[in-house]
Amino acid sequence: MKTPFLLLGLGLTTLPVLAQQNDPEPEPMRPGMSEYWNPKPAVVTPGVTMEAPSDAIILFNGQNLDEWTTDKGTPAQWKVEGNVMTIDKSKGDILTKRKFNSFQLHIEWRIPKDIQGTSQARGNSGVYLQDMYEVQVLDSYENPTYVNGQAGSVYKQTPPLVNAMRKPGEWNVYDIIYTAPVFKEDGTYLYHPYVTVLHNGVLVQNHTEIQGTTEYIGFPKVKKHGAGPIRLQSHGDPSAPISFRNIWIREL
Amino acid sequence: MKTPFLLLGLGLTTLPVLAQQNDPEPEPMRPGMSEYWNPKPAVVTPGVTMEAPSDAIILFNGQNLDEWTTDKGTPAQWKVEGNVMTIDKSKGDILTKRKFNSFQLHIEWRIPKDIQGTSQARGNSGVYLQDMYEVQVLDSYENPTYVNGQAGSVYKQTPPLVNAMRKPGEWNVYDIIYTAPVFKEDGTYLYHPYVTVLHNGVLVQNHTEIQGTTEYIGFPKVKKHGAGPIRLQSHGDPSAPISFRNIWIREL
Amino acid sequence: MKTPFLLLGLGLTTLPVLAQQNDPEPEPMRPGMSEYWNPKPAVVTPGVTMEAPSDAIILFNGQNLDEWTTDKGTPAQWKVEGNVMTIDKSKGDILTKRKFNSFQLHIEWRIPKDIQGTSQARGNSGVYLQDMYEVQVLDSYENPTYVNGQAGSVYKQTPPLVNAMRKPGEWNVYDIIYTAPVFKEDGTYLYHPYVTVLHNGVLVQNHTEIQGTTEYIGFPKVKKHGAGPIRLQSHGDPSAPISFRNIWIREL
Amino acid sequence: MKTPFLLLGLGLTTLPVLAQQNDPEPEPMRPGMSEYWNPKPAVVTPGVTMEAPSDAIILFNGQNLDEWTTDKGTPAQWKVEGNVMTIDKSKGDILTKRKFNSFQLHIEWRIPKDIQGTSQARGNSGVYLQDMYEVQVLDSYENPTYVNGQAGSVYKQTPPLVNAMRKPGEWNVYDIIYTAPVFKEDGTYLYHPYVTVLHNGVLVQNHTEIQGTTEYIGFPKVKKHGAGPIRLQSHGDPSAPISFRNIWIREL
Repeated sequence: MKTPFLLLGLGLTTLPVLAQQNDPEPEPMRPGMSEYWNPKPAVVTPGVTMEAPSDAIILFNGQNLDEWTTDKGTPAQWKVEGNVMTIDKSKGDILTKRKFNSFQLHIEWRIPKDIQGTSQARGNSGVYLQDMYEVQVLDSYENPTYVNGQAGSVYKQTPPLVNAMRKPGEWNVYDIIYTAPVFKEDGTYLYHPYVTVLHNGVLVQNHTEIQGTTEYIGFPKVKKHGAGPIRLQSHGDPSAPISFRNIWIREL
Repeated sequence: MKTPFLLLGLGLTTLPVLAQQNDPEPEPMRPGMSEYWNPKPAVVTPGVTMEAPSDAIILFNGQNLDEWTTDKGTPAQWKVEGNVMTIDKSKGDILTKRKFNSFQLHIEWRIPKDIQGTSQARGNSGVYLQDMYEVQVLDSYENPTYVNGQAGSVYKQTPPLVNAMRKPGEWNVYDIIYTAPVFKEDGTYLYHPYVTVLHNGVLVQNHTEIQGTTEYIGFPKVKKHGAGPIRLQSHGDPSAPISFRNIWIREL
Repeated sequence: MKTPFLLLGLGLTTLPVLAQQNDPEPEPMRPGMSEYWNPKPAVVTPGVTMEAPSDAIILFNGQNLDEWTTDKGTPAQWKVEGNVMTIDKSKGDILTKRKFNSFQLHIEWRIPKDIQGTSQARGNSGVYLQDMYEVQVLDSYENPTYVNGQAGSVYKQTPPLVNAMRKPGEWNVYDIIYTAPVFKEDGTYLYHPYVTVLHNGVLVQNHTEIQGTTEYIGFPKVKKHGAGPIRLQSHGDPSAPISFRNIWIREL
Repeated sequence: MKTPFLLLGLGLTTLPVLAQQNDPEPEPMRPGMSEYWNPKPAVVTPGVTMEAPSDAIILFNGQNLDEWTTDKGTPAQWKVEGNVMTIDKSKGDILTKRKFNSFQLHIEWRIPKDIQGTSQARGNSGVYLQDMYEVQVLDSYENPTYVNGQAGSVYKQTPPLVNAMRKPGEWNVYDIIYTAPVFKEDGTYLYHPYVTVLHNGVLVQNHTEIQGTTEYIGFPKVKKHGAGPIRLQSHGDPSAPISFRNIWIREL
């Protein structure tokens, strides 16, 4: 509350209302009154360093693409070798067979050491959350581009807080915490989607409100949707192909 | 938590953790433990129907424009007659001399009965919150226009939930609850501005997040600012002039 | 971002990254790129002063209690006379037959002119949102009580911002904007319920987060629920009976 | 919007408002209209696995407690050996000399392999954010206690989403993203503090709203405060002492 003031032409004042001598204090409590024993959080065995925790769904175990499909519903056919999957541009995007609501996603990705090109034509891919909202994958190591399109951005919306990119040839890690939107009956957001991203352990998106779809052209769009897959983009960019490994997800 | 499932190739399970027989219950409490007597809310005498409450700052008392100025700092010179102020297009916008942070604003406005024109060229004005964010004023009674530009919209951002417009010649009322943004050091929003608008007592904006400035062209912009005045727009629109009355504000 | 500093023992610095001379500016846009014409907000005819707008459900039309029932499912039997309903303590609470999610509610209430008693025993009733969360009704005109239990409070949680109470014998008005909670599968809130309350046109709750049920004793509880009725409380308080009139609701 | 319905006794309807044939579409845009090149995110060199990134403040480098003090302002005197600091119960809590607002904090902690005791008397310590809000440290490996007091809880408020505890003798990791509260002039929260916690890489707090101080007894309290240190608790618990290592923080 502001300090009292005379009202123009009315002569009224707001009187501060003071505590009174006989005002009761709230009754004292004891510690056990704020201690709950149930329900108990489930026990999860965490992975060592970068392994999946015990309650994760393994989306890529290094051996095959059994968890992945294509837009046509055919088997995903990117190259798998040495625990790593690599984009095959002739095969298009791949997406998970499973659909997810809110989740924690771990995914590692590598720009080829001999990457060529500049700006968006240098290691361009993307991780689409619920098949709607892209967290950009790009070589952002000493590669200027528009900031809402560099690695760690919510594409064409929110730049990363910092640029935590590793050099081409080294593995980058995204740890993504995604909260799915809640829609009103009319198809607009009651609550937006939100995303937190750690890039190589460095916070680059901090509970960022996602405005809508991550459009290449124009304003974000709001489209009602339910659970959706994770999509990995096979971008038209002619630079050398990006690899992924150690992909797991925990439903929240 | 989801139901347990076998992890691919790992053979681990998530075991549900059950309540145990000897789990303590939280200790019982008494009513007085959740009763606070201080600090006491200030006493405010509400107005009768549409009069200002006792703690409001009267921005227009029907007599003069003493609370208003222009962009040049000169005295505001719109027409004042019969408790009503009316836009004088030759005099430009007017804005309050006082600056505000978060507030509750009451303002009444009237489209002339003989209004001419269509779409945005029909009774166009606006109420700018902190001189940054426009709540649109327009004749939206049977006057099609883009919906994020009709009366009750956050201009070029969020359409009103419904169209609660009264006919030309009748008084419209806006009750606006505005929460000022909080900025980070880098000039971006830590928390966006939010606005709730009742148009003639009907909710048209429900704690709407304001994206940034309400630009005529292009995306909203984020510009760091502090307290700001209320601005009333003298729009270039050639249709007949809009009137205002009974304007008061309560700082929150 | 903070100013660069030397890292202890590492000798690294954070280098500010400057805009470069050849950085492109975003391409210019035109006004029509941010103008949407659909979907159009529904047209609602607002009430005159305190009448219901055209899209409201009339919960009390002054004639009968056809929209109300009791906990036993029997017809509501409070006294109806002269467009006013008055609590009959022998008949218990009444609640709407309809159930609601998010809504805008208008309700007027009056403390009898000859009210007796003090603190919570002076005109005690309540408006329960979705039958779960109480906005307190009480004579708070010069009647000290715990502040999170006075008129306009979210009972035992959040005091009103100010005390906008009218004298006994005069009509008080609540305009309540309520956003229903969203629950996670485990029965806890994904998003809390929120409430905004205008008391006689004065803001007393500003998008207040409701912590859980409004318990007489102890901490708020989180209980999963769906749509629910509006409940009006027949409190055990022995002071004179409270009246209500002009009750309408708009689903959001 | 809901489907139209007849209003009781008023005979009005809400008419759906349809798109019209000549409604303009928003003008098309080009990609460059949503591409920003400035300001550029600072470049941060991420650590390898668990090393600090280049813009972190190293709070414990394994060598000394130069960044820490006590409640009396005297030098912190816990035991430092082999890159590890260990609680000395005779020396009390330690807290950082620096004060922080919002931050990303990395801290590793270890329960002794030979821990004894049960419930809260088994490896009890805590990490206090801004010296106000405790993230609990405890041996929660097969050690039942109240769930809002186990490892990863916001103490006496919010249990962890899951129990991701490692065995006694192994190192646990907290990655904590903390957003400081914003206060109103009256000392209450305009925006609550929020915390996200990863425990051994597993999400245990997801942008959790902190209700107030983490009291041993009774309701959380709201106390206005500014920047504050990180406090590590030397708890009265008689079980064997807890160790910490690799502590770094990034201001947000």
